[in-house]
Amino acid sequence: MTEEISYPEYSTHYPLLLKNCFMRPLSLYPDEIGVVYRNDAGKYFRFTWRQWHERTCRLAHALKSLGVNPGKPGQPGDRIATMSLNHHWHLETIYATTCTGAVSHPINIRLSLDHMAYTITHSEDKILFFDDAILPLVEALYDRVKTTVQKFIYVSDKPGKPKTRIEPLYEYEELLKEQPPTFDWPDFNEDTYSVLYYTTGTTGLPKGALFTHRQLFLQTLYTTGNRFLLPTLPNDPPNPNTLAVLINVPLFHIHAWQAPFAYVYMASKIVFPGRFTPENFCELVQTEKVNATSMVPTMLAMLIEYPDFHKYDLSSLITVGTGGAALPLGLKAKAEKIFPQFTVGSGYGMTETLAGVIGATIKRNMVDWPKEQLDQVRVKTGLANPAAIDAKVIGEDGKPVPHDNETIGEIVLRGHWIMEKYFKDPERTTTAWRDGWFHTGDAAKVDQDGYIIIVDRITDVIRSGAEMVPTVLLENLTCNADFVLEATYVGVPDEKWGERPMCLARCLPNSGKTEKDLLKYLETAGVETGKLAKWMLPDYIVFCDEIPKTSVGKYDKIAIRKRIDEFVSRAEKVGKM
Amino acid sequence: MTEEISYPEYSTHYPLLLKNCFMRPLSLYPDEIGVVYRNDAGKYFRFTWRQWHERTCRLAHALKSLGVNPGKPGQPGDRIATMSLNHHWHLETIYATTCTGAVSHPINIRLSLDHMAYTITHSEDKILFFDDAILPLVEALYDRVKTTVQKFIYVSDKPGKPKTRIEPLYEYEELLKEQPPTFDWPDFNEDTYSVLYYTTGTTGLPKGALFTHRQLFLQTLYTTGNRFLLPTLPNDPPNPNTLAVLINVPLFHIHAWQAPFAYVYMASKIVFPGRFTPENFCELVQTEKVNATSMVPTMLAMLIEYPDFHKYDLSSLITVGTGGAALPLGLKAKAEKIFPQFTVGSGYGMTETLAGVIGATIKRNMVDWPKEQLDQVRVKTGLANPAAIDAKVIGEDGKPVPHDNETIGEIVLRGHWIMEKYFKDPERTTTAWRDGWFHTGDAAKVDQDGYIIIVDRITDVIRSGAEMVPTVLLENLTCNADFVLEATYVGVPDEKWGERPMCLARCLPNSGKTEKDLLKYLETAGVETGKLAKWMLPDYIVFCDEIPKTSVGKYDKIAIRKRIDEFVSRAEKVGKM
Repeated sequence: MTEEISYPEYSTHYPLLLKNCFMRPLSLYPDEIGVVYRNDAGKYFRFTWRQWHERTCRLAHALKSLGVNPGKPGQPGDRIATMSLNHHWHLETIYATTCTGAVSHPINIRLSLDHMAYTITHSEDKILFFDDAILPLVEALYDRVKTTVQKFIYVSDKPGKPKTRIEPLYEYEELLKEQPPTFDWPDFNEDTYSVLYYTTGTTGLPKGALFTHRQLFLQTLYTTGNRFLLPTLPNDPPNPNTLAVLINVPLFHIHAWQAPFAYVYMASKIVFPGRFTPENFCELVQTEKVNATSMVPTMLAMLIEYPDFHKYDLSSLITVGTGGAALPLGLKAKAEKIFPQFTVGSGYGMTETLAGVIGATIKRNMVDWPKEQLDQVRVKTGLANPAAIDAKVIGEDGKPVPHDNETIGEIVLRGHWIMEKYFKDPERTTTAWRDGWFHTGDAAKVDQDGYIIIVDRITDVIRSGAEMVPTVLLENLTCNADFVLEATYVGVPDEKWGERPMCLARCLPNSGKTEKDLLKYLETAGVETGKLAKWMLPDYIVFCDEIPKTSVGKYDKIAIRKRIDEFVSRAEKVGKM
Repeated sequence: MTEEISYPEYSTHYPLLLKNCFMRPLSLYPDEIGVVYRNDAGKYFRFTWRQWHERTCRLAHALKSLGVNPGKPGQPGDRIATMSLNHHWHLETIYATTCTGAVSHPINIRLSLDHMAYTITHSEDKILFFDDAILPLVEALYDRVKTTVQKFIYVSDKPGKPKTRIEPLYEYEELLKEQPPTFDWPDFNEDTYSVLYYTTGTTGLPKGALFTHRQLFLQTLYTTGNRFLLPTLPNDPPNPNTLAVLINVPLFHIHAWQAPFAYVYMASKIVFPGRFTPENFCELVQTEKVNATSMVPTMLAMLIEYPDFHKYDLSSLITVGTGGAALPLGLKAKAEKIFPQFTVGSGYGMTETLAGVIGATIKRNMVDWPKEQLDQVRVKTGLANPAAIDAKVIGEDGKPVPHDNETIGEIVLRGHWIMEKYFKDPERTTTAWRDGWFHTGDAAKVDQDGYIIIVDRITDVIRSGAEMVPTVLLENLTCNADFVLEATYVGVPDEKWGERPMCLARCLPNSGKTEKDLLKYLETAGVETGKLAKWMLPDYIVFCDEIPKTSVGKYDKIAIRKRIDEFVSRAEKVGKM
């Protein structure tokens, strides 16, 4: 009998790797512009897919020559950190790192110095790439990370090294010059780790969430398929064949919601603004004829206030996704007034689950609904992808809550791209994963149609007596007031009720409105319409010039609670409880 | 230190299983009609996704009670065979079998009795499901398979068992009655085998090609994504939100090109015609407002000849895919005349690779091309899916042929859904898999744009002197003659040249044309236009009432070559060589 020779590595076990993402544009559209960056000074950098890939190949050779080692399942390769804004260098670094088998660690540069130093030493980053603009930050960190980081790479569009004590310091563009423009991308096990993201550390030290190639590539495949499976509404503009997409969400924030993988795979034109500013946004949409973009609600609020907004032609824009925080209906209404063809979607995710595990999917039986009714679906947190992600909202007894749009429980998840374990942190892994479910710590209810509606972080829920105050509902209603730009709610300790709600609101400049006006609005638009019970009205309202936010733009309720006495003292006591 | 508890089975190793296909329609559209069947007598059977799933759950319980055992990686579960046409029972059986971990073996009922008996005993089928209409065939096979098959299940829309010596015999609908309508579908390793398909055995005994859950589900995910990534042409009708798809290609023929998985996952309305007939086709398209369908060229030719064709409203039909054999341009031109909104695509695949590993993809830079130019792309064999399948055309030296649209080599493949091994046949596995590539035995060339263009089976290539005759080009040209319905070419042994081409053609009834007319046409449309060299013209032309075909509708060149003397004696000797 012949000895059987087979090749599972090329058939049943053909690996799901991130390099597959760039194989599509490279083989189908090598000479089309794939990646665009506009720097602060307004200079444009444009690369065809072939050119971008050649640069990535050169960088892969450079990483090898710098001694970067690949990993294997269960054993991460060398960690390569980036402290960078959104540009082609960052995208090249992420691909060259992961596709040679090492681990990409994009650092959230909005963390505190302490937390940044912690993530670098905890991750044991071997090489650190950083932007010229970020040099002062790296210098401030240097003494705390210099025994961990072996090599620093300086990323700049200007030649030459800066005057700095950081060493050894290499220039990105110099590294590329010496290297060949092709690279034989290796096949390896799909369970090899690819990226390491740290949480923002609002509940202690940041935690490192590791993802494998398989997880990220499957997310890419599902995402691409889902775009096709989304029903078309009667007035939807046709999808452009070459989607131009502007990536505002920082690449260090849950991988800009996986944009670097999905849009490369789709061979979309990827447009990078460096950092988000309203001016950069408008310039790039106009020049690159951007069709799609995503942003956190704060960016949307900044755009709405941008005085030069009307000077630009933004008519190419078809879809604007939001996420990172629940989208207040009021903010949405304001955006619709000034954007042509504005439609929004909402999604839910966290560092440990990747973005968009749950999305506000419109079902095809809804396509003829009036816009107002559709929008109510669009701002729900949504439905989990049924074939990829298993989601439940469970009560304290561990059982799913009834679909009554009322009972509040915790969102638990499992599925292809839910993080398996925190890096070097078995204790917190064991806390998060219980009974075969990843516990998100987010509180939600489920409506009659099975849509999950997020209420708050479990720890942020305001409990008044035996009841939970519906924070997100209150936030949405408050933002519907035409003089309010953004608003959030926290609990104030109360002898009788345990906690009572306080509203922090930021109003339009010169609105001339008072806290009492806002309360009156909530009574009219909330209590009288039956949306709110009277006990849900805030006891305190405080108008602020700025509401504290986390490094990723969410309301920082921990920071607010730390300063609770200060806010209470400034607040108008409006409550009647 | 805490002992780390993690759940790779619910995260990094969350399995890719076929049950995920039906999770989508079940959770999003449970009350929409999902599966429709029209029987020979014109009676309709319609099921919502919930109803269809309940029936599948009952069947899963029945399989358990009949003693069906699941498999594990490397060790297939019990094989459950079906001898069935295209209907809901067949779809239920495929899902209940695979999703309980057993192996579905759809038998090609157009094989010879010998080959059918061989596949059943080689596969060791434990249970055999068969249609009432197929009873005589099963009776003819019975003595040869009764020691292998332990139980027979009779599938019929009429109650009661037939009078037959086959035993033990169960009634499908009776089995379901006793069972509960829910089933706790198990999670298991994605490398578990799901389906076993036998090749048609044109080159010896049929070979069994095994596929895992992972392979089929990944194919589904890629297929779904690709539909979105296909560019939209200026005059394309909009995609309907609920695609109604008519499945003509038998489920036993490479899983009807994976339709049972892709369209369930997409929550399309799946319409089954039992067996393909022009009447059934037209009735179903009209009644169910079918948008999409696929067929082999022979079915298309049958439709074109159907006299009642014009009595039906087929305006819902948007796309008609063809495959299984190269689509002659002439047949396409005829179809376009009588179908409203007819567009065709072409694909390539085989039992071992699944259908559609290579497809005639239109690139987005071509969308403004004139229709005639686009159609020339559409009938090319096409491009491999760049992220899923790796394809090369290699010469005898093992090196890729130049992209010169001329040099002929063999198509070799590897990727997610290329079969790893033949079932219980190490020798033929080793023949097919060499140097990390699956050798298809199909001859092709590659054009300047990288499109693969199939020429013939390596063994069917006609060699005249040192040259290879471009069979597919000749077939296409011949079918362009307005009096020709279908045509193929085989080599006739020749003392001087080794082989010379013979044309077998089937003409329109009462065309009044002769073999000489066809030769003249080939000279005018082929040689004079520069498409053919003179030496490529056939030496022999024979008009037939029927061209021998294999059980899956391809020209059976082995059968033709066996009868070569007969055909030569009937042929008009027209050649000048």
